[in-house]
Amino acid sequence: MRPSGRALDQMRDISIEVDVTRHAEGSCMIRCGDTHVLCTASLEERVPPFLRNTGQGWVTAEYGMLPRATTTRMRREAAAGKQSGRTQEIQRLIGRSLRAGVDRNALGERQITVDCDVIQADGGTRCASITGGWVALRLAVNKLMKAGDIVTDPMVDHVAAVSCGIYAGQPVLDLDYPEDSEAGTDGNFVMTGTGRMIEIQASAEGATFGQDEFSELMRLAKKGVGELVAAQKAATA
Amino acid sequence: MRPSGRALDQMRDISIEVDVTRHAEGSCMIRCGDTHVLCTASLEERVPPFLRNTGQGWVTAEYGMLPRATTTRMRREAAAGKQSGRTQEIQRLIGRSLRAGVDRNALGERQITVDCDVIQADGGTRCASITGGWVALRLAVNKLMKAGDIVTDPMVDHVAAVSCGIYAGQPVLDLDYPEDSEAGTDGNFVMTGTGRMIEIQASAEGATFGQDEFSELMRLAKKGVGELVAAQKAATA
Amino acid sequence: MRPSGRALDQMRDISIEVDVTRHAEGSCMIRCGDTHVLCTASLEERVPPFLRNTGQGWVTAEYGMLPRATTTRMRREAAAGKQSGRTQEIQRLIGRSLRAGVDRNALGERQITVDCDVIQADGGTRCASITGGWVALRLAVNKLMKAGDIVTDPMVDHVAAVSCGIYAGQPVLDLDYPEDSEAGTDGNFVMTGTGRMIEIQASAEGATFGQDEFSELMRLAKKGVGELVAAQKAATA
Amino acid sequence: MRPSGRALDQMRDISIEVDVTRHAEGSCMIRCGDTHVLCTASLEERVPPFLRNTGQGWVTAEYGMLPRATTTRMRREAAAGKQSGRTQEIQRLIGRSLRAGVDRNALGERQITVDCDVIQADGGTRCASITGGWVALRLAVNKLMKAGDIVTDPMVDHVAAVSCGIYAGQPVLDLDYPEDSEAGTDGNFVMTGTGRMIEIQASAEGATFGQDEFSELMRLAKKGVGELVAAQKAATA
Amino acid sequence: MRPSGRALDQMRDISIEVDVTRHAEGSCMIRCGDTHVLCTASLEERVPPFLRNTGQGWVTAEYGMLPRATTTRMRREAAAGKQSGRTQEIQRLIGRSLRAGVDRNALGERQITVDCDVIQADGGTRCASITGGWVALRLAVNKLMKAGDIVTDPMVDHVAAVSCGIYAGQPVLDLDYPEDSEAGTDGNFVMTGTGRMIEIQASAEGATFGQDEFSELMRLAKKGVGELVAAQKAATA
Amino acid sequence: MRPSGRALDQMRDISIEVDVTRHAEGSCMIRCGDTHVLCTASLEERVPPFLRNTGQGWVTAEYGMLPRATTTRMRREAAAGKQSGRTQEIQRLIGRSLRAGVDRNALGERQITVDCDVIQADGGTRCASITGGWVALRLAVNKLMKAGDIVTDPMVDHVAAVSCGIYAGQPVLDLDYPEDSEAGTDGNFVMTGTGRMIEIQASAEGATFGQDEFSELMRLAKKGVGELVAAQKAATA
Repeated sequence: MRPSGRALDQMRDISIEVDVTRHAEGSCMIRCGDTHVLCTASLEERVPPFLRNTGQGWVTAEYGMLPRATTTRMRREAAAGKQSGRTQEIQRLIGRSLRAGVDRNALGERQITVDCDVIQADGGTRCASITGGWVALRLAVNKLMKAGDIVTDPMVDHVAAVSCGIYAGQPVLDLDYPEDSEAGTDGNFVMTGTGRMIEIQASAEGATFGQDEFSELMRLAKKGVGELVAAQKAATA
Repeated sequence: MRPSGRALDQMRDISIEVDVTRHAEGSCMIRCGDTHVLCTASLEERVPPFLRNTGQGWVTAEYGMLPRATTTRMRREAAAGKQSGRTQEIQRLIGRSLRAGVDRNALGERQITVDCDVIQADGGTRCASITGGWVALRLAVNKLMKAGDIVTDPMVDHVAAVSCGIYAGQPVLDLDYPEDSEAGTDGNFVMTGTGRMIEIQASAEGATFGQDEFSELMRLAKKGVGELVAAQKAATA
Repeated sequence: MRPSGRALDQMRDISIEVDVTRHAEGSCMIRCGDTHVLCTASLEERVPPFLRNTGQGWVTAEYGMLPRATTTRMRREAAAGKQSGRTQEIQRLIGRSLRAGVDRNALGERQITVDCDVIQADGGTRCASITGGWVALRLAVNKLMKAGDIVTDPMVDHVAAVSCGIYAGQPVLDLDYPEDSEAGTDGNFVMTGTGRMIEIQASAEGATFGQDEFSELMRLAKKGVGELVAAQKAATA
Repeated sequence: MRPSGRALDQMRDISIEVDVTRHAEGSCMIRCGDTHVLCTASLEERVPPFLRNTGQGWVTAEYGMLPRATTTRMRREAAAGKQSGRTQEIQRLIGRSLRAGVDRNALGERQITVDCDVIQADGGTRCASITGGWVALRLAVNKLMKAGDIVTDPMVDHVAAVSCGIYAGQPVLDLDYPEDSEAGTDGNFVMTGTGRMIEIQASAEGATFGQDEFSELMRLAKKGVGELVAAQKAATA
Repeated sequence: MRPSGRALDQMRDISIEVDVTRHAEGSCMIRCGDTHVLCTASLEERVPPFLRNTGQGWVTAEYGMLPRATTTRMRREAAAGKQSGRTQEIQRLIGRSLRAGVDRNALGERQITVDCDVIQADGGTRCASITGGWVALRLAVNKLMKAGDIVTDPMVDHVAAVSCGIYAGQPVLDLDYPEDSEAGTDGNFVMTGTGRMIEIQASAEGATFGQDEFSELMRLAKKGVGELVAAQKAATA
Repeated sequence: MRPSGRALDQMRDISIEVDVTRHAEGSCMIRCGDTHVLCTASLEERVPPFLRNTGQGWVTAEYGMLPRATTTRMRREAAAGKQSGRTQEIQRLIGRSLRAGVDRNALGERQITVDCDVIQADGGTRCASITGGWVALRLAVNKLMKAGDIVTDPMVDHVAAVSCGIYAGQPVLDLDYPEDSEAGTDGNFVMTGTGRMIEIQASAEGATFGQDEFSELMRLAKKGVGELVAAQKAATA
């Protein structure tokens, strides 16, 4: 029933390749099926003004799409002169989600910026960005710990995200683009490695949804996040 | 326990004053406690390019805050030269939510823009904007129907929204600003008059949340939306 | 002869409601007929760079219109990404006018920003903004004096403004929108409570004007400003 | 008493050099003392959208200052990414003033853009721009009439402008920069060749002004405009 | 003597991987040592306004750098709200260079946009973009020819580019970043497959250069471009 | 054969008028035939952040064109809200070129900004800007030396620029606009007074060029720069 032939609760193939770029303190290329996102973590020994002299650190994120990551070419945001509302919404979500997994006191007064750049898009780019962004962040923090700059590990738990939705009347896991563009309801679930919730966003795109359907989406999401966390563990072992 | 002395499941006083401005096709001032939002609905006999010659209409929303709606003056977005990411995120949410309650074929090829301008803020401005925005939209559509420009009512159901969150460890309904700024988890629930879900956004601001806590938030939200829908009915009777 | 049936030298009804918003140090809603402007005064204990360590204070103003304050919806300036030339011209005029009534040494090294937001427009919004802005400023300064932060009253005189113009060949007082859009000459007069001039702007919109006509406009303006100052006194008594 | 040693009612030396640039349909360099403005008139055979198919033409103006026209270098507006409020206010004034001297039906459906670029500034740049801009416009229209593209002369009268102000307590004519920066009141008067008023802007910069003082400013302005119109006539004879 | 140990006239390793992204009509990842650029060619069946109804096509280019392509993170241009002067200069160069190798009449009235996004930077990104951009363009044109949409091959010759410079007093080929940041003179040479010149840019960064030195740079460039063209041929065979 | 009737290696008439504006520390109007550029040098006793406390100075340049410097009016960049890619490219070239002729240690920690504003354009505006900009810079530095603020002359050599190109198949010197718009190859050569190269930019506009043609362009450029340097010497003697 799904265009890809997947079972209702089946994720796309996940691959996380680490240390893919030479300059960043942490980096990975995450591939969730045909969605490919390059995630880099950049360390700076300064924090935003509101955190100066607090001893706390900051984690923030930026998101972008290469113009031809999509089926038809999109206008380059740098040329358009601004980031779209969608881009800003996504990068705020990534930043909030990653911060929820970090003890900012243990991080100390430094900032890590996670850049998530979509090289190829096939649905679920914001979820892949969170899952891959966590890996880049983990690797950058590892480097700080190895160097003795941080003593207590500030990464309190895994953070990963998956989308679920109601496609052709059925709750399905990990929407790809053909499903996403037709789904009646579309949700993104950000969770920790221990199954706690960080962020839930579910939106009726055509038909409203009931509480039972929502519960099933959440059940699927838990299953998917479990598999993503396993992939994170394998990649950063 | 709540700063305002309200019970955990108690809404703030709701007031919806209609027809408050002379020029708009529909308007109201909604007051949820000390949060006051002026909502106007403006009709245009044209649609965005992607809908031309489809027979379908469009509903969109814009959101703004007067600079001194808040405790300390905020920079005017027109002077800053752009709308913040937060503003864009909110107005996209309002637009999506209102569209979910409208049959755009029945509306016909015309556009209604709902402007939500916060005159005074005390938490929950996006939810008040959705609830009040629906009233402004209802009144504008009433005018079209009275004039015979629309035959079938395109308003398929009420749309209203309320925030809930975990404050001091307790799930509470309808956060005001002192609660919102301290809440560990903060959620916005947009629902229909019949209790179906349109949009759920729940976000861990400091502590993650479990599924049980989330269920309690949803239960509170249903109660709150019920009272808001009743207020909408009274105002537009 | 006037669309509203008013006499040539008759003002619209004036109402000034004070303390209309909870957060601002001073606020009022001024209504000149169907023109309604919300004015707030916001205090900051800092001044622009060019005044640092001079002991002098600053008064500045910003002006905005809600998108549907007008008969047809105007584009939101925050969405357009800039304030129009007209907006900037108006807010510079409001700021200059209010400063002319303030002893900036007596005010001390602090800044008061007066925001004038047009809720509903029917001509004369810049004049209503000046007249109402003065009231908001007066109330904010009262608060500073009551708190003992200022000893000598820095408000040296009332400041109020009215428009006059030549409509259908006749000099008339306090143009409303139907008159304003047809007037051959349009003028704004800002004066003090003792009848001194602060700013005069008169502009031929279709036909040039002679010195006699201009003198009659000024006579009308004096009458109107007298009535506005009386309303300011009543509101702030 | 005046820094320049001029009498109270004495203008600076006026020089208007015509046809100073090769490409423009009309051009002049106007020099009012040390204030030098290059004015060009550019003809286009199209009008703004709101005038299409009305048979009416349009005259508009743009104003700029070279970065080092002033005593200390100012930031280039093109580099700053926007025209200042002052620039917009001035170019709107120039455009309005020139249009007041043109019969736009006689002009026919074409647009003339008058660019006023300040090469060197010493006070009174907006007035010099209006006076010189009229000359550039006159020359461009002459070319159209010579070519037979226009039959009836659309230039109904001369338009010229001068500043007056109260300097050291005395009304003086044609303020230069040292006077302008110290003046208690500063006014710009735009008039026709027959002494009719087009635009009056008078502003209290430090001290308010009375009606008698204003009458004296207007008397001085009439004298000054008379001399400017004579210079326009000599230049375009 | 060179930091990398290369001979003075030795290129870095070149690798061109084609068809690296699923959506673009043509694509490659070009790697010149540690400089990696993703090049995509996007086809549109429309041309810029100035070419409509001329039968001629257009080739244009855009250039970007991921924020952490460099040793320290650079600000994202989309977030900064504009493309830097450097970015614009580079993308204008890429576009001009590629157009010089295309017969735009044979291409027909369609546009191909070549996006060059630097994934990792180590000097010479603009040259790698031109060389890789030509491959992406070649592949997109191949697709058009296979489909029969184009009959005559519009690609008249190869286009490739290499940098040369004077490093530590010696002319060297294919500067990497450590050399580029120290070079006294830096040049970019764009040439065809038959050794004709398309664009030469040579710039003294610290010391001026003489004609003999320049001749040696050009000799080195010819050698380098020869190797790049061979790599293009191998990749597109 | 040339539209102007000039010999292949003949420059246009050069005139450099110095001290043309009252406020700038150095200024000239350079006229290369019908291309007229006003160049001013402005001194500031501060440097960009990256040079603070290094003892080194900075020379930078900005470039602009009056809207009607060209045959048809161009949009004013300040009104458009940004400088075009072409403008930025040109002003970066002017700045780089002038810096190549300055010993920034001898200049000391101060900045000189050279503004080049094209009053009338007929091809070659960037070259005229460099040549005239050097004169303005020379005059400003003279003033500093006369005042004893600088001891060692930081101007190490003349800097001048000329364009050459292949017009109607023939290499010609100093392209005017009719030639420039038709040239198959177009180059700009920036050189010192002793014939060393600072910057070479040659670009195929329609047909590629060979090494012999390029050598002839360089020979012509040397001849032209020699004449320009002579004119600089005469003007600043």
